[in-house]
Amino acid sequence: MEKKLIVDVCLSPQLYPAYEKEDTIVVVIDVLRATSAMCTAFEYGVEKMIPVATLEEAHEYKKQGYLVGAERNGIAIEGFDFGNSPYSYMTGKTKGQTVVISTTNGTQAIEAARKAYKVVIGAFTNITALCNWLQTQDKNVLLLCSGWKNRLNLEDTVFAGAVAERLINSNLYQTGDAALAALFLYQQTQQSQVKFFHNSSHSKRLAAMGLKKDIKYCFTLDQTSIIPVLEGKYLVKMA
Amino acid sequence: MEKKLIVDVCLSPQLYPAYEKEDTIVVVIDVLRATSAMCTAFEYGVEKMIPVATLEEAHEYKKQGYLVGAERNGIAIEGFDFGNSPYSYMTGKTKGQTVVISTTNGTQAIEAARKAYKVVIGAFTNITALCNWLQTQDKNVLLLCSGWKNRLNLEDTVFAGAVAERLINSNLYQTGDAALAALFLYQQTQQSQVKFFHNSSHSKRLAAMGLKKDIKYCFTLDQTSIIPVLEGKYLVKMA
Repeated sequence: MEKKLIVDVCLSPQLYPAYEKEDTIVVVIDVLRATSAMCTAFEYGVEKMIPVATLEEAHEYKKQGYLVGAERNGIAIEGFDFGNSPYSYMTGKTKGQTVVISTTNGTQAIEAARKAYKVVIGAFTNITALCNWLQTQDKNVLLLCSGWKNRLNLEDTVFAGAVAERLINSNLYQTGDAALAALFLYQQTQQSQVKFFHNSSHSKRLAAMGLKKDIKYCFTLDQTSIIPVLEGKYLVKMA
Repeated sequence: MEKKLIVDVCLSPQLYPAYEKEDTIVVVIDVLRATSAMCTAFEYGVEKMIPVATLEEAHEYKKQGYLVGAERNGIAIEGFDFGNSPYSYMTGKTKGQTVVISTTNGTQAIEAARKAYKVVIGAFTNITALCNWLQTQDKNVLLLCSGWKNRLNLEDTVFAGAVAERLINSNLYQTGDAALAALFLYQQTQQSQVKFFHNSSHSKRLAAMGLKKDIKYCFTLDQTSIIPVLEGKYLVKMA
């Protein structure tokens, strides 16, 4: 069978224009912690989320009475309801609510991809549901890593490699070079998980902030079967 | 000993602003084929090179009587003296000459990094000389991959990983996430070279053009001990 679909990886939101393509599902990835937190939010009953790139927009929504999560550089911003931890959504407070969220990297990546055919949210916590769904769509897949301030980060790249491996194994897709690079990286880290976690710069940053519990949670596979999807300005639970 | 220096990798010229840093030696990498050809040019007696980003500039120099190599998408541009093959510099014609060069990706990367503390040229063909020299400089190192039209390419990333490994082994450097990613990728490809060469998109492109000989040459280690370095508008042989 001829493989007509393409899976590729974009390692920074800044490179998105170089990878943009018609008929492509963009999977936005920010493992530590935005997209992991989004999956958790829906799993724990959030109704809708409004991802916004700037703190100004976040403030505007806060004034209107929304619950707002806002984080920069791993730290919750004062004056908002919470930061970027998945645990923020387990308290019952956000159940049935519409929550606005603005983060250092993840919400910028969503902004970059807004015009794509479809934008969905990926994390280790929903990887199996995500990969199974992608394979039924008959569309190209672009795995968009949020990275760190336009730089590559290790955990998003490794996650992209994990997804790429599952899609490649389905035999439906051709791969771009970046997908192969992420795949090889993922395979290498499977042989040396400890070294990988120890070395990732953002893992170090969060661990130094006492957020090891968050890191462990974000690297735990399949805690939900929900795939958040962008509909207009809202992220909603995919039907 | 505290490791104060940093080695990192920038996977696309477009991301250079996110990685730019003072006191950093930038190694420009375009394995297939611009930086490999540059190393060959000096090894075979070229006096100076003038890398230019646009074909307009290349035309201007051509009118002034310079020898000009110009290539886009792997193909030599009509009206110039040659394209991007290392073999262009083995004919004797370029010996003692100043040669102007403009390529799809490599000369764009040089342009992006022009204001760095120092810009040098790296390829598998000069890897040992390059790595030995870098370790004597007491400077940060940024390995700048030219990629393919702002996308990541596999061969530049793998080369960056090979350099990163040697520098990390010297115990002088801390690493950024992208350097670790390139390192892990390099280590993985060491276990499966064949698969890697077979899959690289630009290898496929060049092989389809009958340029397998060029590919083989560009992946052969240490054919020269010359390190080309940017001085003003010229690339020259490092003293």
